[in-house]
Amino acid sequence: MRTLRVIGIGPGDPRQVTVQAIEAMNGVDAFLVLDKSSDRKNPAVKQSLVGIRREIVDHYVEGGAARFVEVDDPPRDRDPADYEAEVRRWHLARAERIERALLDETGDDGVAGILVWGDPALYDSTLRIVDDIRARGILDLAVEVIPGVTSASALTAAHRILANRIGEPIHVTTGRRLPDTPPGADSNQIVMLDADCTFRRTAAPTDQIWWGAYLGTPDEILIAGTVGEVGDEIARVREEARARIGWIMDIYLVRTADSA
Amino acid sequence: MRTLRVIGIGPGDPRQVTVQAIEAMNGVDAFLVLDKSSDRKNPAVKQSLVGIRREIVDHYVEGGAARFVEVDDPPRDRDPADYEAEVRRWHLARAERIERALLDETGDDGVAGILVWGDPALYDSTLRIVDDIRARGILDLAVEVIPGVTSASALTAAHRILANRIGEPIHVTTGRRLPDTPPGADSNQIVMLDADCTFRRTAAPTDQIWWGAYLGTPDEILIAGTVGEVGDEIARVREEARARIGWIMDIYLVRTADSA
Ligand SMILES: C[S@@+](CC[C@H](N)C(=O)[O-])C[C@H]1O[C@@H](n2cnc3c(N)ncnc32)[C@H](O)[C@@H]1O
Ligand SMILES: C[S@@+](CC[C@H](N)C(=O)[O-])C[C@H]1O[C@@H](n2cnc3c(N)ncnc32)[C@H](O)[C@@H]1O
Repeated sequence: MRTLRVIGIGPGDPRQVTVQAIEAMNGVDAFLVLDKSSDRKNPAVKQSLVGIRREIVDHYVEGGAARFVEVDDPPRDRDPADYEAEVRRWHLARAERIERALLDETGDDGVAGILVWGDPALYDSTLRIVDDIRARGILDLAVEVIPGVTSASALTAAHRILANRIGEPIHVTTGRRLPDTPPGADSNQIVMLDADCTFRRTAAPTDQIWWGAYLGTPDEILIAGTVGEVGDEIARVREEARARIGWIMDIYLVRTADSA
Repeated sequence: MRTLRVIGIGPGDPRQVTVQAIEAMNGVDAFLVLDKSSDRKNPAVKQSLVGIRREIVDHYVEGGAARFVEVDDPPRDRDPADYEAEVRRWHLARAERIERALLDETGDDGVAGILVWGDPALYDSTLRIVDDIRARGILDLAVEVIPGVTSASALTAAHRILANRIGEPIHVTTGRRLPDTPPGADSNQIVMLDADCTFRRTAAPTDQIWWGAYLGTPDEILIAGTVGEVGDEIARVREEARARIGWIMDIYLVRTADSA
């Protein structure tokens, strides 16, 4: 049986890799790099994100025998007549490509690895693809998942803060869904995948915000304060950094002034 | 200046410690172990939780020169006339004890460490105590925080699942607050600190649940299914394990049948 290891490598700092991830990487014959078409359009992203992965493997894998195999995302119709059908078709096409790579790049008892940014459970498609491959029922695949440090933990550690006030819940969401958070769930929100600084539309000026970009990398930027004081600064610094570096990864915790 | 390193050690499996945490442990002169009075009453908890910490330090720290210093929680009035005032008094007394331990156990330029279960940002009091010590303004203290793998990531990795359906938010809460989660925030909930299997009161029989206890330890137990199918089983297995082992740490993800 083939084995696929889905390995969380933490949010960017090579030192935030676990011992378990290092052990798992060391048994891998071929690393599959899922090359998102969105990233492919941006060479700066591709170089950085693929570069950090290679750096981690070079640093921690002894002997250096493992290969890196890029698996391109299939082409996608961004404006289909039937949206749901196109998403299903595309997911299937993607699963087929990765299944093919597993068959081509690993022997019958071989071990493939996919390195996932942060933790594999959080806003990442790898485990969904694995489900799609399994659903096809062609490849006999043992799947191992290695948890990683999330970008949320990197954010709070960098700011030396707790995610929650005593006993309060924490809502983890995306820029797109942030405006939908119902009152009562919004006391502590960790927001990922937000290209628009959406907090400027949803938060009160007295809410606290802790923002971080490129966490754990030499480009790390941190800003904290009330939304009223630092909200515009965050948007400005974010835009400057994105223009200068060519891409950005950022995350923030926004906390209501009153406890829930 | 003294340094205090607050080091996330992951949720139990010594292999889920990061390289950064290992490096941080290696510079520490004395590890402070905050001994909670609630744990002190239960020798099984104390042995296991302090035991795993010692095991991690023995395994990863070279030379073995670092000392372990237990700092007992101060006594607490559980039924005070003025609840808020008593909490404030107790927090202050706790900060004083730890400040004293830092002064007694590390030299002027010394390094103390506190090992935190999982990640220091999640339902842990260490960083609050640090704030209390700083607010006192007596000790000149540099604080470093090292993120760790959370028990939430250990849960989802063990079940090989994502925490979210595509694009959906994730609500992280406690057993006590679970009944308060507003509709619209409850599609994916990760519940910690729940001694009562509170999901039996809040979830629908068709909701999915992924439960895990003692994750990453030799006693690990996993159960998954719909709440209707496995809800009672989880409560029974939990109670049996707690009675047999003397304590329990468990966490679950509960997901509504319909996507939000
Ligand atoms: C597709 S999600 C993947 C999250 C990842 N699985 C994790 O556990 O952190 C990508 C988002 O994670 C956040 N992120 C990941 N790494 C980051 C870093 N080093 N600094 C800031 N944000 C980061 C950003 O919000 C980014 O939009
Ligand atoms: C005081 S909180 C601390 C959480 C920790 N800081 C983290 O990041 O996971 C303790 C709760 O974490 C969860 N927990 C921690 N370690 C666990 C483990 N190994 N297995 C299952 N649950 C765990 C349980 O819900 C427990 O009640």
